[in-house]
Amino acid sequence: MEMNIALLPGDGIGPEVIDQAVKVVKAIGQKFGHKITFTEAVVGAAAIDATGEPYPDSTHEIAAASDAVLFGAIGDPKYDNDPKAKVRPEQGLLLMRQKLGLFANVRPTFTFPSLVHKSPLKLDRVDGVDFVFFRELTGGIYFGEPRGRNEQGTKAFDTNVYSKHEIVRLARMGFEAAQKRRKLLTCVDKANVMATSRLWRETVQELAPEYPDVKVEYEFVDAVAMRLIQWPKAYDVLITENLFGDILTDEASVISGSMGLMPSASLGTSIKLFEPIHGSYPQAAGKDIANPLATVLSAAMMFDYAFDLKEEAQLISDVVNLSLDEGYVTEDIADGGTAYKTSEVGDWLAAKILA
Amino acid sequence: MEMNIALLPGDGIGPEVIDQAVKVVKAIGQKFGHKITFTEAVVGAAAIDATGEPYPDSTHEIAAASDAVLFGAIGDPKYDNDPKAKVRPEQGLLLMRQKLGLFANVRPTFTFPSLVHKSPLKLDRVDGVDFVFFRELTGGIYFGEPRGRNEQGTKAFDTNVYSKHEIVRLARMGFEAAQKRRKLLTCVDKANVMATSRLWRETVQELAPEYPDVKVEYEFVDAVAMRLIQWPKAYDVLITENLFGDILTDEASVISGSMGLMPSASLGTSIKLFEPIHGSYPQAAGKDIANPLATVLSAAMMFDYAFDLKEEAQLISDVVNLSLDEGYVTEDIADGGTAYKTSEVGDWLAAKILA
Ligand SMILES: CC(C)[C@H](C(=O)O)[C@@H](O)C(=O)O
Ligand SMILES: CC(C)[C@H](C(=O)O)[C@@H](O)C(=O)O
Repeated sequence: MEMNIALLPGDGIGPEVIDQAVKVVKAIGQKFGHKITFTEAVVGAAAIDATGEPYPDSTHEIAAASDAVLFGAIGDPKYDNDPKAKVRPEQGLLLMRQKLGLFANVRPTFTFPSLVHKSPLKLDRVDGVDFVFFRELTGGIYFGEPRGRNEQGTKAFDTNVYSKHEIVRLARMGFEAAQKRRKLLTCVDKANVMATSRLWRETVQELAPEYPDVKVEYEFVDAVAMRLIQWPKAYDVLITENLFGDILTDEASVISGSMGLMPSASLGTSIKLFEPIHGSYPQAAGKDIANPLATVLSAAMMFDYAFDLKEEAQLISDVVNLSLDEGYVTEDIADGGTAYKTSEVGDWLAAKILA
Repeated sequence: MEMNIALLPGDGIGPEVIDQAVKVVKAIGQKFGHKITFTEAVVGAAAIDATGEPYPDSTHEIAAASDAVLFGAIGDPKYDNDPKAKVRPEQGLLLMRQKLGLFANVRPTFTFPSLVHKSPLKLDRVDGVDFVFFRELTGGIYFGEPRGRNEQGTKAFDTNVYSKHEIVRLARMGFEAAQKRRKLLTCVDKANVMATSRLWRETVQELAPEYPDVKVEYEFVDAVAMRLIQWPKAYDVLITENLFGDILTDEASVISGSMGLMPSASLGTSIKLFEPIHGSYPQAAGKDIANPLATVLSAAMMFDYAFDLKEEAQLISDVVNLSLDEGYVTEDIADGGTAYKTSEVGDWLAAKILA
């Protein structure tokens, strides 16, 4: 297969971890005979520094023309804590999502046997957890108008808005994912308070008969925030709006004990983007110590979701698991054993793929 | 002191647990020589059944004329899962908060040595946790206009709106609480996305110099959702808007392992209301098995926050701790020991106060 992959390393440790994913993707290409071309572009603080814009048109063109985007991370302390900064790296993220039409953020939570002891939760609560959030990513209060201040600046407002078709396309992805998994879909909303949530619930209720094999549950966002800690194994597929998804997927990310390994996908009608859920981790940038596994697993998701190449995806998962089993890992999860460099882990994984 | 207390038992187990709080409050009155009058009124499903309204005017008059309100719980399954129901018990809750001007919801999270083993978190993460949320309760997306649907019903919208003065009065409560505690205030917002959050952050930044002894931290709501699980001991006082507070206080409530014991207060400029954080628990209603301790501890908060009677508040806490130490508790926390009835626990606590 021919694959045209856009690389958007971004800020902080982004470039280093993307480098390792590229090694792995190249190895897969070599092994399975795919012709893969990479095109790199700037985003985030790196892009502001280079062009004044966090998501320049030139980057957008490269991403929009690609078959899949591998994205690192965005964020630089020099742009933080300055409420008056005109351009901010995160705006690049929001612009990118919107312009590429990435309306569904897919966030799996699962455990690794060798890491689950790092979970803040007790073992019986978390062992074997396996659920996935589908977070709506281009609507809701993130983009709704009007938003801003009154003239005197003493009153501020944001608008949460959802159209039925935005809910339908996200919900269908959730239903389809549930059909391939344990057939349970949880619609997370605040229908006892919000008009948008009532439209979400109503829309999901209308779609449900089309997926008779899927059991649908409706839960309020506050209840889910509790149950994610109390009994996370209760969940299979969860669908929710942008803001609730932001909060709950981050809450979910810490329960497995391996946040540094969690991949994600953001899907649109044509473009698909893959990124680790961890941030730009500026303190570690340039030190060759960052854990590349989340980005490597995001590349595995890419083969699965963007190219429907399950075998390739599986092989990447397998070598990642091998690196965990053999302790060929970076310092954050070395647990007293030898700590390898970011680049060493990338080389090792690529070599194992070709072995 | 003369005290005029409104009792709003509400639905489910509400009446039973309020009964026990009344026994305890009466015992305190007797012991300390306070003249306490109770006036009861309906709210929630009970009020819909009786009057057609979830928060009738007659109830409002009683609550508004009181020195403090003791509130049980709201919610009945017969009104749930019916998206087309015209009146719903929860509307009573929202109306009550709004009409009584209860703008600050105070939600402490702390642990009991004898119950902390029930926490879903590992002991080292949660042992000794002690923080308190001040959630804004009468503004934000819960009440903002416009809200609703477009004509065709295919688009829904909600408005999140905050005026500076709403933020100021809530934030001042938080600052003052922090001054009496560990002097750390965390302002929880989503200032990287929301205009309302930027006003929150800006307003708190303006107030901070008036409280030079308080260290102020600003954290995004998604980050707090993570750190509440990873390292909840990091927090002291947290302030936040209505919707974020709804989600995060519920998340916080399960980490201590003693959700069934957590009290809360809702404060306005004149009226003050006290309630357990647990719900109406309809499955247990009428069985004399519900745990009354959260409501009893809410009565302790009442003596402290409404009447500034610390000794009375402390004595209630002390007898609650005694009941835990001696295992004179309801089945939910009996842990294999003898389980006492709701009413027996109330009698026991009242007797200990008078002993
Ligand atoms: C940086 C921020 C705007 C972003 C969001 O809230 O969507 C981030 O938290 C995320 O979840 O990717
Ligand atoms: C019942 C509901 C409207 C309410 C809220 O969201 O405020 C509840 O969840 C709470 O937190 O007291």
